[in-house]
Amino acid sequence: MEQRISLVTLGVSDLARSRDFYRRLGWVEDPDSPEDVIFFQTGCMVLGLWDRSSLAEDSVVEDNGGWGGVTLAHNVRTQLEVDRVIEEARSAGATIGREPAETLWGGYSGVFIDPDGHPWEIAHNPAWIVRDDGATLLGS
Amino acid sequence: MEQRISLVTLGVSDLARSRDFYRRLGWVEDPDSPEDVIFFQTGCMVLGLWDRSSLAEDSVVEDNGGWGGVTLAHNVRTQLEVDRVIEEARSAGATIGREPAETLWGGYSGVFIDPDGHPWEIAHNPAWIVRDDGATLLGS
Repeated sequence: MEQRISLVTLGVSDLARSRDFYRRLGWVEDPDSPEDVIFFQTGCMVLGLWDRSSLAEDSVVEDNGGWGGVTLAHNVRTQLEVDRVIEEARSAGATIGREPAETLWGGYSGVFIDPDGHPWEIAHNPAWIVRDDGATLLGS
Repeated sequence: MEQRISLVTLGVSDLARSRDFYRRLGWVEDPDSPEDVIFFQTGCMVLGLWDRSSLAEDSVVEDNGGWGGVTLAHNVRTQLEVDRVIEEARSAGATIGREPAETLWGGYSGVFIDPDGHPWEIAHNPAWIVRDDGATLLGS
């Protein structure tokens, strides 16, 4: 199995509400997305939004509700950019789980929670590289 | 906020068991991973494995256990490759949630579940492009 992820699908309860939230963050969906799914091209991969119960059925898992052990992170190039993205998320209607602050691992990060409870850590990790095209690379 | 994901972290209950599972799939972790986290460079982004309760605390979410509305997918270039990856996952000790078969959306896929209950859909979608470097692109 090649060492890569093609698609992360987030289960949502109201597709239009979630689409509007990501649009408010400045994201642009694929115009050819199927009627009941929203796809965003995110660098070398895709983020999808789909009805959570359909996703659970398709993934052959029980849905207990709530969070299930997966967190997304979005790394940026400066601490200032962490502050800026957290403000954008707040303006877009996100809950801020953790205000930006220095972290134990030597970086700086904050967390916002999307309308369906999916957490996003916005982080500056000085030991990682965020390329101009957004690719995030381990090591320095 | 740029339209991209830097890191997907999977919460796990036994880091060594999860590391060994992904190693059996042929993945190679970053040698500079911290002691309590495993990082894999996955194309333009990173996959991390970390203790689930630590991840919940860091993400400022309640953990109800079980699945929480996030599914990963790994797209390949042919139906045969779907079969092959599902067999690799079975040999590595995964539970097969759904055996490979044609899908309603015109593709072909199967699902395996990793040791911590995280589902991976292995898919061939003839409408998407999987480049030689593994990048998965919408449209054709």
